[in-house]
Amino acid sequence: MENEFSFIKNKLRPLSFGRKEARGLSDDCALFPNINNLVISVDSSIEGVHVPLGTDLSVQARRAILRALSDLATFGSTPLCVFTAINIPNTFNSKSFDKIADGYRKALIEYDIFLAGGDIASYQGLPIFTVTVLGDKGSSTLGRKGAKKGDLIVVSGAIGDSFIGLKLLQNNNASFNEDKTLINKFLIPNPRIDIGKIIINYATSLIDISDGLLADLGHICKNSNVGAEIFIKDIPISKGAQNYIDSNVFSHIDLITGGDDYELLYTINPKDIKNLDNNSHIIGKIIEGDSLNLYSIDNQLLNPNDTFMGYKHF
Amino acid sequence: MENEFSFIKNKLRPLSFGRKEARGLSDDCALFPNINNLVISVDSSIEGVHVPLGTDLSVQARRAILRALSDLATFGSTPLCVFTAINIPNTFNSKSFDKIADGYRKALIEYDIFLAGGDIASYQGLPIFTVTVLGDKGSSTLGRKGAKKGDLIVVSGAIGDSFIGLKLLQNNNASFNEDKTLINKFLIPNPRIDIGKIIINYATSLIDISDGLLADLGHICKNSNVGAEIFIKDIPISKGAQNYIDSNVFSHIDLITGGDDYELLYTINPKDIKNLDNNSHIIGKIIEGDSLNLYSIDNQLLNPNDTFMGYKHF
Repeated sequence: MENEFSFIKNKLRPLSFGRKEARGLSDDCALFPNINNLVISVDSSIEGVHVPLGTDLSVQARRAILRALSDLATFGSTPLCVFTAINIPNTFNSKSFDKIADGYRKALIEYDIFLAGGDIASYQGLPIFTVTVLGDKGSSTLGRKGAKKGDLIVVSGAIGDSFIGLKLLQNNNASFNEDKTLINKFLIPNPRIDIGKIIINYATSLIDISDGLLADLGHICKNSNVGAEIFIKDIPISKGAQNYIDSNVFSHIDLITGGDDYELLYTINPKDIKNLDNNSHIIGKIIEGDSLNLYSIDNQLLNPNDTFMGYKHF
Repeated sequence: MENEFSFIKNKLRPLSFGRKEARGLSDDCALFPNINNLVISVDSSIEGVHVPLGTDLSVQARRAILRALSDLATFGSTPLCVFTAINIPNTFNSKSFDKIADGYRKALIEYDIFLAGGDIASYQGLPIFTVTVLGDKGSSTLGRKGAKKGDLIVVSGAIGDSFIGLKLLQNNNASFNEDKTLINKFLIPNPRIDIGKIIINYATSLIDISDGLLADLGHICKNSNVGAEIFIKDIPISKGAQNYIDSNVFSHIDLITGGDDYELLYTINPKDIKNLDNNSHIIGKIIEGDSLNLYSIDNQLLNPNDTFMGYKHF
């Protein structure tokens, strides 16, 4: 059965006709070296797929822009503006429109960018916010291809908050003081624009974590033709997320396969370790081959199997 | 009741924060004077809204790109590449993907452009193809604002074929030899890229006809603060469309309010009349005020009323 990934790889990639700007449709963005190193990415956010049914429209709209901006961070690019296509239910009213505009406004102001154009169409379906982001001054040297054997694997912040936040939203079941923070990590992603601009100066590969830490590390490995070993004990976990691990509600595996973190995952040559800031955590290293070796909290090599590989859609 | 137009005008336009690139969200595209006069537009095509339910996926995909390219024609811009967000039903299979790729390929090859990026998401809904087009060398002087009293109003080709083609598709009722041509005018729009590049050298305002000749002329008038008078007898009608007028199945009013023509509608100073080619037809002129005076086939001034103003969604 063909899925979205194989559709892109097998049927859409040939339509880039080998143009370098498209980067084989395998990176988060296209980059135009001849146009100010312009960086462009497109993302759709569908109610019921990317956010739970009934999520506040203002949050949906804001989140759609923030997610798209996260792609720009992987090229160290400065956000410039956004375009949007909004597909809205026929039943929408003035209040719905107010909420959408409000959500967009929040994201635009926060990143000092503007809405440059768009398209609105009403239909018999759920809200869909498709966002095209433009950024300039992208780095053409990065992407997912450059990881080398011996490189260290780094994440820019705590992993798994957003996964737990989503589960809390879905089950309407917050228990701990820190739960509101977890929920907000899901609803209001923090694209790592500023960190991206610094990292591009020394990272050898770079991706934002949207599909889950393991899956996105897999994207780097596959595109760089390398393997990786990572250590669960070294993966940063917030106090809020630790509550749920301690309570045996969620496992580390859940957190690193959950997705929607929008932290940056990247590789560096060990000589550049001095450049890392306090929020960056080395979680493993790049190895030869094509295996992804995962070590448990007590440093046991786990047996890879389908339960911890790849993104689980909700 | 708020609709899409007032949403854009009242709530999205302020989000362009007065940036000139966004052109007040009132033109077909954004234009970036500081980035090679880059031109960008976004369009969604939803099955059941923009094309009838059950339209072949290859045609839907191809048409989505062609419609978006038509926006570039209004800036005399050379198409560069496209991005796409594809929202597809969960039930899609390999054959569906083949058709989408096939439709995109046709449009890309025809205009010598490439797919630069995209996003695929499956959901419980009908296919939606959102296309972001990039073109370069756009003219920053045009758009919908420049029409002046005394300017002549011109269309680049026959009006109404696409409207009839759509009706034939919906009713599955082709009667004339020319009907296949009418249907194809709807299914496979012909964005007037080459004509646009010439027209921008002398037009005073320019729009592509997507909402219908009358509605799009209204957009020019409103943005230019002028009125217009147009003469039905001067509006070019194809032989295929004339069959349906002669048979009293459709009226001229149907044809000029129908939409989806993707011909160019523009205004010129009378001194530039020598520049018009054989396919261009002068259909009226710009007048003072804000009225749109429509003269019947026998030159009688028609009484404006709701039946001939604006776009009728199907």
